[in-house]
Amino acid sequence: MSRLTRETPARSEFQDAFDPSVRWLIEQRYGQSESKGPSGGAPGAVAATGGSNTLALLLSHRSVRRYLPTALDPHVLELLVAAAQSAASSSNLQLWSVVSVEDPENRRALSELAGNQAHVRECPLFLVWIADLHRARELARARGIASDGLNYLESFLVAAVDAALAAQNAVVAAESMGLGTVYIGALRNHPERVAQILGLPAQAFALFGLCVGWPDTATATAVKPRLPQAVVLHRDRYGLTESEHELVGHYDAVSRHFYTTQQLSNHEGGWSWHSARRLATAAALNGRHVLREALTRLGFPLE
Amino acid sequence: MSRLTRETPARSEFQDAFDPSVRWLIEQRYGQSESKGPSGGAPGAVAATGGSNTLALLLSHRSVRRYLPTALDPHVLELLVAAAQSAASSSNLQLWSVVSVEDPENRRALSELAGNQAHVRECPLFLVWIADLHRARELARARGIASDGLNYLESFLVAAVDAALAAQNAVVAAESMGLGTVYIGALRNHPERVAQILGLPAQAFALFGLCVGWPDTATATAVKPRLPQAVVLHRDRYGLTESEHELVGHYDAVSRHFYTTQQLSNHEGGWSWHSARRLATAAALNGRHVLREALTRLGFPLE
Repeated sequence: MSRLTRETPARSEFQDAFDPSVRWLIEQRYGQSESKGPSGGAPGAVAATGGSNTLALLLSHRSVRRYLPTALDPHVLELLVAAAQSAASSSNLQLWSVVSVEDPENRRALSELAGNQAHVRECPLFLVWIADLHRARELARARGIASDGLNYLESFLVAAVDAALAAQNAVVAAESMGLGTVYIGALRNHPERVAQILGLPAQAFALFGLCVGWPDTATATAVKPRLPQAVVLHRDRYGLTESEHELVGHYDAVSRHFYTTQQLSNHEGGWSWHSARRLATAAALNGRHVLREALTRLGFPLE
Repeated sequence: MSRLTRETPARSEFQDAFDPSVRWLIEQRYGQSESKGPSGGAPGAVAATGGSNTLALLLSHRSVRRYLPTALDPHVLELLVAAAQSAASSSNLQLWSVVSVEDPENRRALSELAGNQAHVRECPLFLVWIADLHRARELARARGIASDGLNYLESFLVAAVDAALAAQNAVVAAESMGLGTVYIGALRNHPERVAQILGLPAQAFALFGLCVGWPDTATATAVKPRLPQAVVLHRDRYGLTESEHELVGHYDAVSRHFYTTQQLSNHEGGWSWHSARRLATAAALNGRHVLREALTRLGFPLE
């Protein structure tokens, strides 16, 4: 470490990255620790590092589905979008938009379409992230330039990835202010009805929603453990060997323990069984198996 | 503000969010300010806020394409992947992987496939982010469960979005340590050859690369201005009116100024013209117009 920090313009954060609080947060993320952590298990784990450590903030992420009714300062939205726009954009094409849904009727309608998730109605700020090829098409048309490149799956994918990078920056920004968030992928259960509610033109697709608000700490959630790092990180060549299969078995036990202690719905067999059932059939996709047809009707040829 | 901060468990960061340094960073992001900023224009704008402000970090993002040859502490990779795994994952399916490419021959090959970008060869850490349906398929197979849900465009999209959310967390984590990054979308110019180099099995797709390393401050880059917020943020209903068209015209001027002062390649007419030319034809996509066919051959039916 000392060699690195002498030679480079590192911030103090670089040393912080290796402190015991961050180590503890990593153990939490992989379900390896039952301890209360270096600061005695303060509910906001970030508190353990004084709140100034971005790494600790990232490692402490959890989805929040219960919010206080407190309204947000109007500038919060501006800050979140500025953070979102600061994410990288492929060739700076900026093929995304975001809709802040404020009308209560629209909130109610979107909540129903998203499988009756109450937090879509109740959160103080609800953002819908749009993979947006429409704007590029219109700007090209106004300049008398063709836009055939937008017809390809590649352009749709760029728009989706750029929207996701942007949204994730907004999430990190929100959490840095103490706010909670949760992504709402279930908007893709009914893409055309969502498009109608938001007045989306052709070639604009609601990729996912995002709830933002002050977490109701009365229903605080725990950090959800993820797959062991060795299962998702490969060196030079991809591999899924016997040893990774064993690690997944271990993670199944970790996830069963997590779901039991959090009193969440039945995850019989653990993560790998639950996930497999979730992907077993077209019907298990909650209507999203028709996404390709829906996108065609929404103006994406996906050539 | 005071009402909010009394009623909620906000961190001090919430007040920081509205301080003059952050305001100045937002102006930079939208190309509205020629001033040196509140601290006299320190090269690392984050320095203006003492380095502790996650918002300032996000707003200060810029792509880094020149790196010092200094190797990274081996734990950096572990930290970045832990941060990546802390991002939200749709139904916790975790449909992504990451390959750290360390072999110099493979680096050289990937650099060539990505349009001879030298930084792909030269950066100390090069990560390839994988939209990975293979692992889910194999785990289901080992458990005797069908995995027909993976055949649909929806599952590919979930994998791509989850990989993007994860990668962006890794980017923020890297920048919080003072490291620089740049995404390499050009890996999609040759998806099948990239898959071969990384030993990717069927249903695993290299979505993009990511260079990580200590920035060579001798070639520091400026914050790239983005579209005015009013163009990308909509209230309740999507709109692209005359006034947004005018704002794009203004942004064209901002982007021309940026590219001139940064002595970058010719962007005649500014952003909207440059972007339109970049999307005008299939040929302009650098070979990526065949992505759908390539994905089919890589085992994604995209039904």
